[in-house]
Amino acid sequence: MTTDTFDIAPLFAPGQPVPAVRWTGYPKYNFIGGHNDADSTPVAALTEAANAVLTREGRDLSLYTLQSGPLGYRRLRDFLVGKLRRDAGIACAADEILLVSGSLQALDLVNALFVARGDTVIVEQETYGGTISRFARLGAAMVGIPLDRQGMRMDALAAALEDYRRRGVTPKFIYTIPTVQNPTGTIMPDERRRELLRLSEQYGVPVVEDDCYADLIWDHKRPPAIYAMGRRGQVIHIGSFSKSVAPALRVGYIVAPWDILSRLVALKTDAGSGALEQMVLAEYCTQHFHDHVPVLTRALREKRDTLMEALAEQFGTAAEFEAPPGGIFLWVKLPDQVDIAKLAQTALAAGIAINPGPEWSVDRDWSKSRMRLCFASPAKETIREGIAALAEVCRREFGVPARSANVEKRAGA
Amino acid sequence: MTTDTFDIAPLFAPGQPVPAVRWTGYPKYNFIGGHNDADSTPVAALTEAANAVLTREGRDLSLYTLQSGPLGYRRLRDFLVGKLRRDAGIACAADEILLVSGSLQALDLVNALFVARGDTVIVEQETYGGTISRFARLGAAMVGIPLDRQGMRMDALAAALEDYRRRGVTPKFIYTIPTVQNPTGTIMPDERRRELLRLSEQYGVPVVEDDCYADLIWDHKRPPAIYAMGRRGQVIHIGSFSKSVAPALRVGYIVAPWDILSRLVALKTDAGSGALEQMVLAEYCTQHFHDHVPVLTRALREKRDTLMEALAEQFGTAAEFEAPPGGIFLWVKLPDQVDIAKLAQTALAAGIAINPGPEWSVDRDWSKSRMRLCFASPAKETIREGIAALAEVCRREFGVPARSANVEKRAGA
Repeated sequence: MTTDTFDIAPLFAPGQPVPAVRWTGYPKYNFIGGHNDADSTPVAALTEAANAVLTREGRDLSLYTLQSGPLGYRRLRDFLVGKLRRDAGIACAADEILLVSGSLQALDLVNALFVARGDTVIVEQETYGGTISRFARLGAAMVGIPLDRQGMRMDALAAALEDYRRRGVTPKFIYTIPTVQNPTGTIMPDERRRELLRLSEQYGVPVVEDDCYADLIWDHKRPPAIYAMGRRGQVIHIGSFSKSVAPALRVGYIVAPWDILSRLVALKTDAGSGALEQMVLAEYCTQHFHDHVPVLTRALREKRDTLMEALAEQFGTAAEFEAPPGGIFLWVKLPDQVDIAKLAQTALAAGIAINPGPEWSVDRDWSKSRMRLCFASPAKETIREGIAALAEVCRREFGVPARSANVEKRAGA
Repeated sequence: MTTDTFDIAPLFAPGQPVPAVRWTGYPKYNFIGGHNDADSTPVAALTEAANAVLTREGRDLSLYTLQSGPLGYRRLRDFLVGKLRRDAGIACAADEILLVSGSLQALDLVNALFVARGDTVIVEQETYGGTISRFARLGAAMVGIPLDRQGMRMDALAAALEDYRRRGVTPKFIYTIPTVQNPTGTIMPDERRRELLRLSEQYGVPVVEDDCYADLIWDHKRPPAIYAMGRRGQVIHIGSFSKSVAPALRVGYIVAPWDILSRLVALKTDAGSGALEQMVLAEYCTQHFHDHVPVLTRALREKRDTLMEALAEQFGTAAEFEAPPGGIFLWVKLPDQVDIAKLAQTALAAGIAINPGPEWSVDRDWSKSRMRLCFASPAKETIREGIAALAEVCRREFGVPARSANVEKRAGA
């Protein structure tokens, strides 16, 4: 600061996050963030959609929420009514859907409705980093429920709920990503969803279902949404077009009965989410969504395969992972001597970005040698080069993988 | 609620706002909200812009913040650097601009940086309703500084600052809408801006300058922004494209030096504002913005004239107002016996929406017979019919205007 500067730092409210650092472009090997496959972005059809809807309804941009009111563009909500019935088994009306600025705004609104400082929330032990940082910022206590190959473990959930009941605490909700769990990639089967609802009922704790990856399952066999199986008001459902169409279009949605939705609407004081994106999505999705998704998932699956092959080749048995049945990320365990936070830092200096496990888990110790690798955005050749470069950094820092790793084979690979 | 309903109301966090009511369409005579003139919405050029930018850069929608990072689409920030220099006298770099989801998100971010429960903020006595409701929600104490025809009164500001200094309180900032003040329509002259900065300096209280109407001045003679006249870090500047292009495009911006902006970026946890709207605006504005604004302001001025004529005809001397030099609203005083909150309610039942003064003022008593009328959206004929209908309701409820009002003339009209 120079003497020419007016010093306002003493006026900042307490509890500020660390200031952002200047953005200097994406790293060469970018395995983080929910970025998608550029080749699968339906540019021509989105352009046509923009043309059609702007020509037909462009004058409505002069109105804050078009002709649709605060829930968002009616034609997109109408599309979602059909899509949610078809894909997720959800029977809801257009006025039980609130369009929001990405599923992140959905999380903020739901948190604003339920969470006060000192409250308790239940999450999967490994979960979305943005959820963890949000709860931390709000001063909420997070209880992490361990996962297995079928998602959140119900025995552990039951034990946690019972423990809190004994202590006289009612957690505000159970936050789950049941369908292509972030970061583990698991899909919770029907039976376990029913068990989750039974426990939710027994302990009077509602469920927040974050389903933003649910469109991206290779075989398109998606269980009914928990929302579809629960009682009215028991589940709040969150979805997004970020993963299925394009992340830069900031359009997500919340499904809930009106007595809950009306409270979320009251908390949404932004005079509406971006209308043009809602209009273009409605026009595009009504015609193309159900044809587009299989094209996208084929491309994603190929990239997943490329990533798994590259890991097997470069890390050999040092990298352990399950092949995810969908999504855009792989959750990888490295040998215990690898301090993943340190690896992430060193790798970034070499142009390789990875998500260190502790940012995606409420158990720092359990996740300290784990990482999330996103495979949707980088080209296949970039994935191969990037994993080779990462293996090189890891070997230099931690002595693993051994130099001979590329001739070792992973068990079962 | 039926017995089928899972009752989560006991889990809501304290301090919830009143739930939203179901939206049933716009009122027939809509004099509220920042809606704009549909005929002036540049639909064809926006459509062309969408075409061009999507064809050229549509693939980048696969990236959360395009190729631009968290500050927002670079080409729009580049446009703003030139626009702010030309129109507002602001010399800033592209990385001193943060693109946000409308100026409402700008207010939320600035409040998050400064305002904790119990803090004090200084506002104009009459000010934007969304600002008042935000501070109320945050538990901040608002001090309202009276306005005259040149905006916020500096004698009253000096007295308030001195009073707070004596009490050992430093207000967090002075929030002002200096250019086409909402709702009074005043423009603060250069000399008063300098006086404001002098007081800000003397008392160590920064200025938040909300300039979202500043493009809409009939004669386009806009004083330099307060930001342009202050020291580095003394002023945070907020702008928007909602009033100058289209409100449904939720794009606003914050201008601040990096040490402040980096903190606002850290608080902006939405993974970027809608990219398509930023892209289309950049493409459109670079070519058309400076030609579009005079076309829009001519149309707005005509509607203002229509509204003032209709008020003179229907209310005669019972409606007092100053002709605003720009903007989209008129601030009207009715006779003291008119309870404007009651009038607003009765009028709404008759299909006429007005903003009651007490929602736009921190002095409920002073504003209890005042109202804000927005004239940008309704057609001229609708303005005339609506004001006639409003006069009828007002007469029925409060006995004014007298039935002969349409032959009385306002003094000076």
